[in-house]
Amino acid sequence: MTTGSPLYRSPAIHWLGTSLELLDQRLLPQESRWVSCRTADEVAQAITDMVVRGAPAIAIAAAYGVALDAMRLGADASAATLAPTFARLSASRPTAVNLHWAVNRMAQLCNDSNGNELVARLAREALLIHQEDLALNRRLAQFGADFLPGKQSVLTHCNTGALATGGLGTALGIIRALHEEQRLAQVFAGETRPWLQGSRLTAWELMQDGLPVTLVTDSMAATLMQQKRVTAVVVGADRITANGDTANKVGTYSLAVLAQYHRIPFVVAAPTSTIDMHLGDGSLIPIEERPADEVRQVRGVATAPAGVPVYNPAFDVTPAALISAIVTERGTLEKPSTTALADFMQTHASTFP
Amino acid sequence: MTTGSPLYRSPAIHWLGTSLELLDQRLLPQESRWVSCRTADEVAQAITDMVVRGAPAIAIAAAYGVALDAMRLGADASAATLAPTFARLSASRPTAVNLHWAVNRMAQLCNDSNGNELVARLAREALLIHQEDLALNRRLAQFGADFLPGKQSVLTHCNTGALATGGLGTALGIIRALHEEQRLAQVFAGETRPWLQGSRLTAWELMQDGLPVTLVTDSMAATLMQQKRVTAVVVGADRITANGDTANKVGTYSLAVLAQYHRIPFVVAAPTSTIDMHLGDGSLIPIEERPADEVRQVRGVATAPAGVPVYNPAFDVTPAALISAIVTERGTLEKPSTTALADFMQTHASTFP
Repeated sequence: MTTGSPLYRSPAIHWLGTSLELLDQRLLPQESRWVSCRTADEVAQAITDMVVRGAPAIAIAAAYGVALDAMRLGADASAATLAPTFARLSASRPTAVNLHWAVNRMAQLCNDSNGNELVARLAREALLIHQEDLALNRRLAQFGADFLPGKQSVLTHCNTGALATGGLGTALGIIRALHEEQRLAQVFAGETRPWLQGSRLTAWELMQDGLPVTLVTDSMAATLMQQKRVTAVVVGADRITANGDTANKVGTYSLAVLAQYHRIPFVVAAPTSTIDMHLGDGSLIPIEERPADEVRQVRGVATAPAGVPVYNPAFDVTPAALISAIVTERGTLEKPSTTALADFMQTHASTFP
Repeated sequence: MTTGSPLYRSPAIHWLGTSLELLDQRLLPQESRWVSCRTADEVAQAITDMVVRGAPAIAIAAAYGVALDAMRLGADASAATLAPTFARLSASRPTAVNLHWAVNRMAQLCNDSNGNELVARLAREALLIHQEDLALNRRLAQFGADFLPGKQSVLTHCNTGALATGGLGTALGIIRALHEEQRLAQVFAGETRPWLQGSRLTAWELMQDGLPVTLVTDSMAATLMQQKRVTAVVVGADRITANGDTANKVGTYSLAVLAQYHRIPFVVAAPTSTIDMHLGDGSLIPIEERPADEVRQVRGVATAPAGVPVYNPAFDVTPAALISAIVTERGTLEKPSTTALADFMQTHASTFP
C-alpha cells in the first residue's frame, strides 16, 4: 500500500486500501456476499449490475474506482492516463448525477498534479467523499425531521438507507432521526418492484435497527393514504434539475400524485450533489431502461410468460409542483422552482462546511 | 350420471357432470394443472386457496359446488340438507358478491322442490349460470367497446379474462372487442402484486390470443399516463355498492386516482350480479386480508426478511366519484351515483334476456 489510506467502512462499502469490497445487494436479505473490486472497470460493472446501488453509494464506489486505477498506474497516473477510467465509470449508469459529480470531483485533482502525488490525492479524496457523505446524511436527517412536526407515519419507496449511501441514509436518515426523537409511529415500506429494494433492503435495514416497519406492495400505497394511515411520503432522488423536477426510482411519481390527492406532504431527501443545475427540467434527464427479465422474473423465478413485451424504466420524473420540500444537507427548500432553487444553492453555498 | 347434464367447458372451469375440474391458477403460466373437486367443500377450499379466482368464475364454481353436493344427497336433497353447503360456499371468500348471488340463486330452487327433482334443477341451474356468464360477457364487451371511441391504448389491472369468468372476460372482454374492431393500439397489463394475476394470467391470455400486450409493474402505471401512452383504464369489480363505490383487486383505487389526475377515462366492467344494492356505500364492503407471506414471497421465493410485518388487503374500494362509467351486460352507466344506479337497475331490469 503506497497511499497510506486508512481502512474505511460503511454497511455496504468497505475500502481496504487496495481493493473495494461491495456487499452484493442483489442477494440481500437472504445472503450476505461481498464482491471484491480491484479496478475501476470492476467497480463500473458492479454499478451497472446493481451489486451496489443508490445514488450516493454509487458515487462513493466510483470515487474509489478512480483511486484503484490511479494506484495501479502509480508514477504514470495523470489526466490523460486516467481519462478512460473517468469515462468508464461515468457511463456505468445514466440517470443518477451524483456519480458524475464524484467522478468530476476526482478528475479536477488531475489538473494540478500527477504521478504518485496524484495517486495519494485521489485516494484521500475518495475517502473524503465517503466520509463527507455520512456527515451530510446526519445534517440532512435533522433538517428533514425538523420539517415534519409531531408524530409521523412515513411511507417510503425504494432504499435510501445505509446501504444506498455512506451510512445512515437520506430518506431513511430522516426516518431514523424521527425515531430517535420518538416521533415515528410507523414506517410503511413499498416493496419497490421490480428490484424489490423496499422489501429486500429497506425492510431489512429497519428491522435490524428495531424501527416499526410494515411492508406493503407498491399498489397498496393509495389504500394506506385513503385510510389516513400515512402522514408524510419521504423519498430519495437520483437527479434533481434546476427547476426542482426529480428523477427517482420508478413508482415515485405515482406516490407524488397520490400524496397530492390525499393532501399529504411529499418530501424529497437528497444531498446537494444530486442537484444538476445544468439541466433546466426533468424532461432532459436520461432515463435508464433495464432488462425485461427484471419484470418477467423475481429472483430468477418466472412470473410472466417468456418473451412477453415489457416496459421497464428504472426511474420516473416527479414534477417540482408535486414536491412539498427538498431536504438537503444544507437545509430545506419548500415549494421548489427554478428561482427558489437558484437562490437556495447560492444562499447556502457558503454555509457548507 | 343421474342428472343428464352435458359436459360444459370454459378455459379454467370444466364441468364433467360428476366432478368440477378447475385449472389451478396458482401455477400458471408455467404449469397447467387441473384440480378435481367432487364436493362443495372441495370447491370452497379451491376458492379460498385461489385455485379458481375472479368474481364471476368463483360464482360459477360455487354453483357447481352446490350441484355436486345435491347429487351426492340424491333423494335426500332439500333446503335443510343443503344448508351447510350454501353456508360453506358463501364463506369461502368475503369480498366478491357474485358468489353470494350465485349461491342465493341456487338456494331459491330449494323453496319449491326437493329430492331428485331438486338435484336435476340445481345441476341445470349451475350450467345456466355458467352459460349465461359467457353470453353476458359478450354483451358487456360490446357496450364497453361502444363507450370508448376511436383507437385505444388500454391499461388494465389483475385478470378479468376468460380465466376469471365463464369465458371472454369483463374488462378483457371489452379489450377483445376493441381488438376485433381493429381499434386496440396496445394493452398495458399491470403485474398486480402480490398475486401477479396481471403478469401470470392476463399477459398469458392476451399473448395466446395474439393481442398487443406490454407488461409493466404496478408502479409504472403513472409513468405511462404521464407519457400519454394510456387512453383508458378498464378494470373489473368484485362488488359495487348502491352508490357506485367499487371494490376490486388492490391497486385499483390507485389507478382511479391517477386516471383522474391525468384526465383519462376510468371504466369498471362488471356483470350486474356484481352490484350489491343492499350496501349503501363502499365502507360497508368486507375487505379480505390475505396471508403476509403473499407479500414476503413470490412463488415461494423469499423477497423480504422472514417475519417482517405486512399489510395485505386483497381489495380496495374506489369511490364512485372517480369512476367514469360502469359497463354491464345491460348497458353502460356513466357517472354512477345512488340515484343513477337505482334508476339504471330499474330501467334495464326488463331488458335482461
